[in-house]
Amino acid sequence: MNRFLDLAQFERAQIIDLLSLAQALQDRPEPRALAGRILGLVFFNPSLRTLASFQAGMARLGGSSVVITPGQGTWQMETRRGAIMNGAAAEHIREGIPALASYCDALGVRAFSDGKNLADDLHESVFGMIDALCDKPLINMESAMNHPCQALADWRTLDELEVPQSGKFVLSWVWHPKALPLAVPAATLHMAAMRGMQVVVLRPEGFALPAPIMDKARRAAQQAGGSVTETGDRAAALAGAQVLYAKEWGSTTDYGNAAADARLRAELSDWCVREPWFAGAAPGAKLMHCLPVRRNTAVADEVLDGPRAVVRREAFNRMAVQMAVLHRMLAKPAAVSESIA
Amino acid sequence: MNRFLDLAQFERAQIIDLLSLAQALQDRPEPRALAGRILGLVFFNPSLRTLASFQAGMARLGGSSVVITPGQGTWQMETRRGAIMNGAAAEHIREGIPALASYCDALGVRAFSDGKNLADDLHESVFGMIDALCDKPLINMESAMNHPCQALADWRTLDELEVPQSGKFVLSWVWHPKALPLAVPAATLHMAAMRGMQVVVLRPEGFALPAPIMDKARRAAQQAGGSVTETGDRAAALAGAQVLYAKEWGSTTDYGNAAADARLRAELSDWCVREPWFAGAAPGAKLMHCLPVRRNTAVADEVLDGPRAVVRREAFNRMAVQMAVLHRMLAKPAAVSESIA
Amino acid sequence: MNRFLDLAQFERAQIIDLLSLAQALQDRPEPRALAGRILGLVFFNPSLRTLASFQAGMARLGGSSVVITPGQGTWQMETRRGAIMNGAAAEHIREGIPALASYCDALGVRAFSDGKNLADDLHESVFGMIDALCDKPLINMESAMNHPCQALADWRTLDELEVPQSGKFVLSWVWHPKALPLAVPAATLHMAAMRGMQVVVLRPEGFALPAPIMDKARRAAQQAGGSVTETGDRAAALAGAQVLYAKEWGSTTDYGNAAADARLRAELSDWCVREPWFAGAAPGAKLMHCLPVRRNTAVADEVLDGPRAVVRREAFNRMAVQMAVLHRMLAKPAAVSESIA
Repeated sequence: MNRFLDLAQFERAQIIDLLSLAQALQDRPEPRALAGRILGLVFFNPSLRTLASFQAGMARLGGSSVVITPGQGTWQMETRRGAIMNGAAAEHIREGIPALASYCDALGVRAFSDGKNLADDLHESVFGMIDALCDKPLINMESAMNHPCQALADWRTLDELEVPQSGKFVLSWVWHPKALPLAVPAATLHMAAMRGMQVVVLRPEGFALPAPIMDKARRAAQQAGGSVTETGDRAAALAGAQVLYAKEWGSTTDYGNAAADARLRAELSDWCVREPWFAGAAPGAKLMHCLPVRRNTAVADEVLDGPRAVVRREAFNRMAVQMAVLHRMLAKPAAVSESIA
Repeated sequence: MNRFLDLAQFERAQIIDLLSLAQALQDRPEPRALAGRILGLVFFNPSLRTLASFQAGMARLGGSSVVITPGQGTWQMETRRGAIMNGAAAEHIREGIPALASYCDALGVRAFSDGKNLADDLHESVFGMIDALCDKPLINMESAMNHPCQALADWRTLDELEVPQSGKFVLSWVWHPKALPLAVPAATLHMAAMRGMQVVVLRPEGFALPAPIMDKARRAAQQAGGSVTETGDRAAALAGAQVLYAKEWGSTTDYGNAAADARLRAELSDWCVREPWFAGAAPGAKLMHCLPVRRNTAVADEVLDGPRAVVRREAFNRMAVQMAVLHRMLAKPAAVSESIA
Repeated sequence: MNRFLDLAQFERAQIIDLLSLAQALQDRPEPRALAGRILGLVFFNPSLRTLASFQAGMARLGGSSVVITPGQGTWQMETRRGAIMNGAAAEHIREGIPALASYCDALGVRAFSDGKNLADDLHESVFGMIDALCDKPLINMESAMNHPCQALADWRTLDELEVPQSGKFVLSWVWHPKALPLAVPAATLHMAAMRGMQVVVLRPEGFALPAPIMDKARRAAQQAGGSVTETGDRAAALAGAQVLYAKEWGSTTDYGNAAADARLRAELSDWCVREPWFAGAAPGAKLMHCLPVRRNTAVADEVLDGPRAVVRREAFNRMAVQMAVLHRMLAKPAAVSESIA
């Protein structure tokens, strides 16, 4: 495997294989599998789980990591093609990414959208450039519209919880003080659809997911025997649901318009998940969230601290599935000399 | 050992055992003792010695480290229970600490007091929450009122210098431009008392250590055959002293009141340790400081650059004693599979 | 080897030996050569290639690294002798450097000039103090007036490109929004001179390199059979050149005077390398730059994205040559116990 950028680039059977490998590595650790291998981790945006779980996962497989944070200890980086660089950025990704790739055996890159141009973001214009510049294996640690490591970890969590493959999965918008990217909702939706679930996207007016994201998920659902629908009706959405996946995101009708987004969300502070939301849900329905989560604005303490919340397991599973991805990418018995020549 | 939070939670004999292990690991290195083990280092506050010595110590034992700095590359974290998180913090320690613990075999956490509420700080309210949230071994890398790694390193330094166990140890307040926490003075006082020394706390008016700290140290001194007293009289305190341990801290009569603290310390700039302070001290009396130290405001160049200063040895001993703590916590022959399951 | 601070401190034959070792380590990796060794990397200034390539290089040799960034997660550090430390810096290098050296087997330090006092910078006043404070092997990762790792990597790149030892090498000033240090131009000039090349320094009025730097390079050229000249005439300089090495630096006639420097460079925006610059150059002439490079202000896209640019190879060679330096410094079979005692 040379790229891990989007679950949609894999067959369903390949994903299930990766999940099996994650379990195998947990049952029978391979503490030297990646000895001598080096993973470069490039964070254009903050991280806790991704930063820690990739480093810990590499170490558990015997490899090493190098962390680069442009703008913090490292030069701020330009991404625009043809830019006349007389501003704050001292380096262009056209130099920076190939240099880092040349030192490492694989790169992981996190590059959030700046939330300004929906077409560019749907097209993954920045991550596409990074992809083209990296001649080593590459992992998407969250791009404008994707977060495949989170999606894979969540799939594993659903399997561990024995949520039926055809179970009802509600992806619900929740409140946040500002517009957040669409990467996690898009990746979560696709994962649940690809798993074969009955997926409902629950969101207020102005926050429907863009048609290309919905359509892509519908095609995945069709192949897997599931479905994808959307609604603004909370009770209808949650009736009989096995899983409520809470996530914050920005307005899509007013993408890139912070003032309009703020006006829309000013009325939506009741979109904080509380126990009564689960009144009509299936018995033992679960609350999922990719973290970080803002308590008592996105999800209430009563839910996060209760038995429904499985967010800690989701977080742990980040490391578990990433170890499988790294193992598949880097555990081949290539001579080290080749990797640095 | 599952917790290293406070020297007071150990018997004197256990501390001496740890110091013996530190010496043994220096004499006969065990470069594979912690192979495959991962230490998560969480810094809510800046660090030089702690950051470098824990990473180097883990590496010298064959293990790995992951560094997390909330607010710098990682989300700013909330610690208050029940907080409505609509401000700067994107994540609560209730999610962040368990996630990190799940990736690692042990955590070290640094979380200074914000210096506002003395009762909360004496009660270690924040570190107590972290302790409760961490289901892996945990090391206090400086909390509101403790710094056991520094205290253990200083104990080792006193032993190396052959300072008699019943020697006179003066912990003196020194000047600093602003109020600093009580963690190091409290831990140092307790260490010297537990070692059995004749301890004198030398401090100006308004800077007496809180009664619970003094009382706890007096109980330790009583058990070990030493004593704990306090005074504002510099000459009396230093008469015959073997050790002057210089440390900056904030006003305790006006805890959390920056303006009142500033007024008090405005008159105290002569509390900068200079050579004449040692006029009545024992021959060869030593100057100790946990570092970082501000030269020529807290301690003068003439002392730091002279033969009395043993601050570099104290700094080196941080690594030496922490390797013993890590070894005791993590060198058991548990199957790696258990540690990540 | 205990110090790697300046190519000028080595014989030409020793440099060629180091380059041979770099090639040998690439051809026959030694993934355990530095097992148990720890490199401390201290960055007073930002970095991408240095930060990543030293960590990756240590890992490829089986060793570990610890990164310290004063002012970011670590205390801000004072360097002035005799300073009364009542400002922002909490720690002096007189304590900080020895502490870090005591944890590690070698240190690498980056400490740019602040560009205020030319005599101090030519004398390496800050790096000289760091050198004196470090009782372990020390690598200059860029000081006020030197960057030997970059110079060594560039020498390797010239060899790989089969640029004749007596070829014509033009070091040209290029535009940048502000004054940058003289470290890279000084180190590059010396490297090319020491390699035996016909070196021309091409620079506008006000930006001539200081006489001590030119004189030192002339002596090296004389020994190696090359030459060092300077000019402001671009066409003359580039006529027949095999290599154009582009670099930004600050005014030397107005060193430390930001306003005067800004006035001088306001008229010099045509000092951006474009394809026509190479009109009279040798066929296949190369463009070199140490990176980071500002596109379309220092060097145009058309050059950086064309076949002349060898900047990615220069970047890769940073790791290759640094592995040779680290191997020579640390691969001796000393007992680990000695290194921490």
